[in-house]
Amino acid sequence: MPEFLSLVTPDKALDLLFNAINPEVKSEIIQTEKASGKVTAEDILSLQNLPDFKRSTVDGYAVLAKETHGAGESLPAYLTIKDEVPMGDEPEFSLASQECALIHTGGMLPKDADAVIMIEDTQILESGEIEVFRAVAKGENVIEVGEDVSAGETIIPKGTRLRPAEIGGLMALGITSIRTAIPPVIGILSSGDEIIPPSQKTKPGEVRDINSYTLAALIEDLGGEVTHYGIIADSRDEMLKALKKAHQECDHLIVTAGSSASTRDLTAEIMNILGDPGVLVHGISIKPGKPTIFAVSGGKIMIGLPGNPVSALVIATILVSPIIEAYLGVKSSRPEPALFAELTVNISSQAGREDWIPVRVIKTPEGSFLAEPVFGRSNLIFILARSDGLIKIPASATGLEAGSLVTVRLI
Amino acid sequence: MPEFLSLVTPDKALDLLFNAINPEVKSEIIQTEKASGKVTAEDILSLQNLPDFKRSTVDGYAVLAKETHGAGESLPAYLTIKDEVPMGDEPEFSLASQECALIHTGGMLPKDADAVIMIEDTQILESGEIEVFRAVAKGENVIEVGEDVSAGETIIPKGTRLRPAEIGGLMALGITSIRTAIPPVIGILSSGDEIIPPSQKTKPGEVRDINSYTLAALIEDLGGEVTHYGIIADSRDEMLKALKKAHQECDHLIVTAGSSASTRDLTAEIMNILGDPGVLVHGISIKPGKPTIFAVSGGKIMIGLPGNPVSALVIATILVSPIIEAYLGVKSSRPEPALFAELTVNISSQAGREDWIPVRVIKTPEGSFLAEPVFGRSNLIFILARSDGLIKIPASATGLEAGSLVTVRLI
Repeated sequence: MPEFLSLVTPDKALDLLFNAINPEVKSEIIQTEKASGKVTAEDILSLQNLPDFKRSTVDGYAVLAKETHGAGESLPAYLTIKDEVPMGDEPEFSLASQECALIHTGGMLPKDADAVIMIEDTQILESGEIEVFRAVAKGENVIEVGEDVSAGETIIPKGTRLRPAEIGGLMALGITSIRTAIPPVIGILSSGDEIIPPSQKTKPGEVRDINSYTLAALIEDLGGEVTHYGIIADSRDEMLKALKKAHQECDHLIVTAGSSASTRDLTAEIMNILGDPGVLVHGISIKPGKPTIFAVSGGKIMIGLPGNPVSALVIATILVSPIIEAYLGVKSSRPEPALFAELTVNISSQAGREDWIPVRVIKTPEGSFLAEPVFGRSNLIFILARSDGLIKIPASATGLEAGSLVTVRLI
Repeated sequence: MPEFLSLVTPDKALDLLFNAINPEVKSEIIQTEKASGKVTAEDILSLQNLPDFKRSTVDGYAVLAKETHGAGESLPAYLTIKDEVPMGDEPEFSLASQECALIHTGGMLPKDADAVIMIEDTQILESGEIEVFRAVAKGENVIEVGEDVSAGETIIPKGTRLRPAEIGGLMALGITSIRTAIPPVIGILSSGDEIIPPSQKTKPGEVRDINSYTLAALIEDLGGEVTHYGIIADSRDEMLKALKKAHQECDHLIVTAGSSASTRDLTAEIMNILGDPGVLVHGISIKPGKPTIFAVSGGKIMIGLPGNPVSALVIATILVSPIIEAYLGVKSSRPEPALFAELTVNISSQAGREDWIPVRVIKTPEGSFLAEPVFGRSNLIFILARSDGLIKIPASATGLEAGSLVTVRLI
């Protein structure tokens, strides 16, 4: 299949890919305390009420609410202190009429108590009684059994990426291990006769491998795992051998093609050899990143990215992240924050092509943001290192005017 | 020092703390490929030009630009193909007048060539000559030596949190190890006689430890490291022993106090014993989290957080993150994205106190967001687990009206 027989839009490219796969989430049981950032692989239910006893939310006296009714500054109620509630233990007494018990925040209410009066609303007398200057309602300053979570309730649905708050909730319920998605393993291959490992000194004509490392860092940020296959020579045999191996050993693979058109065609040809349906997308109407290839074989995704490090990283940021999320089983992603900024200059673009422009973001003294394009040739990696994010010019537009409000996708 | 002698604002609390410390960033040399998310501890300079040879950005023919001048569809220029530039190697020939050389994207220009004409703008003849249908300017389709980075240039300043793009840039320059900040080690202690480890079954009156785990997950997200000291009994001797040990072994420590006022006072008292200046802040005009303590001893920060898990996590999110960043040496943080939403209900608050309200974010069919407060008692951990973020009611306000545009701080 020659290059760019028919370009598809970025959305269409993802559609074609997702129609050809059926992402299966592999899962494992891990310790909850190590699960921050992981994605739940099953609904998690609570086996108990939380809290499982009536707790005070303040320092004060456990009372029978009705015995404080009518109490006020000028007409206090009088109650006898029966005992003190021990922290972390069940009180061994119950309250009779006209009795109260000293209780601390988090303490368990004695039997028959149904409210707590704050210590500030009382005064202790030498007789061992207290004066109560305020009425409390039933349940006031008390957390009821099951008020946070009821036994049997689904507390965290399948497909949730766990944050510190969920980790805390699980611990509160004694759920110290949970089933989460195993990170998909992505094989990364760089091809090109001019590419050498970063640790080596370059000779004229050689450049160091960038893509293996930018892509690995990005994929790990997204929750995937990476296996490196290093640098593959630009020959049909070497490429076929390396891709076959990576295809066997990994869940999916990404190969950054050599820079020339012939090398990119070679990548597509080899992906077709590896199995059906083979290449689904060969060329996307996006800049940078037009020569992107999406292929599927044996239920595994193979992505061919341009050798140009800026193109490779931009496409991975925009199009590879939904793929990783699918294989982690992420459902209903949380709302994405965004950064809105005013574009500083006019930018033109070609209609029918989605353009992504690197920008630096500048905060104005008023607290708003300006987006200043970082111009330069699209294959200079430090263009991205000097940028805060990317802005999109939609395919329907022929550019954006200075002063337009744009959404910056931070990188 | 009794509790809440004088409440300070959250900003004032941080000011008092930062005035009493002089954050020293400890650093170490690590492999660049493992440095994503780490913070540089020195300016990083390039020792070389990037690229260090003139490269073609297209597939085509290397030419002397002036020899294409005047060329067009109707009046092509004719050039003889001298040779092909090998990928990854220096061409062993130079171009004489009327000569060109086949070159691939990323190839090194032969000596004397100063532009590349795209293959699409040429036609090859049987004679071994090419017809050139378009003039190219000097430097066209060529990346000049040092166009991305010049030798001696500071490419990444000290205090930068590294992203995939910077990792790529460093690799391109052969910088395979760099000096980054060592994560500050935060000791975490939970106190309270009612607290038991999450793996244990609760008896009536007992609750499981939440704070050790929510705080650890948050601190690790921020780039810090955690040492756990477990659950400390609510006694002066036990607390003093445990805090002393953590203070010796860690860079800083956080203790979540037992829930009652007397326990929180005990925490402050012990922090004062550990050394000068001791407690700097005891009570912040913020909700949740009023009983927060900031102390310093021997240049180490000690933070006392309320035992209430929601308060502890909210305060850590808002006030502990700038502390971790200071000890990582983060300079000029990147612009923060934000999520703007329309508040669904009226919320009242007390003037003079900053309130943080947990909200769920709902996306409207139009793509805008609604922020719906998740009401419930402030010590229910699942209130946070059910929330997407927090909204702030400033101290100057007495509430927010339904329909107000609010900024949601995602958690």
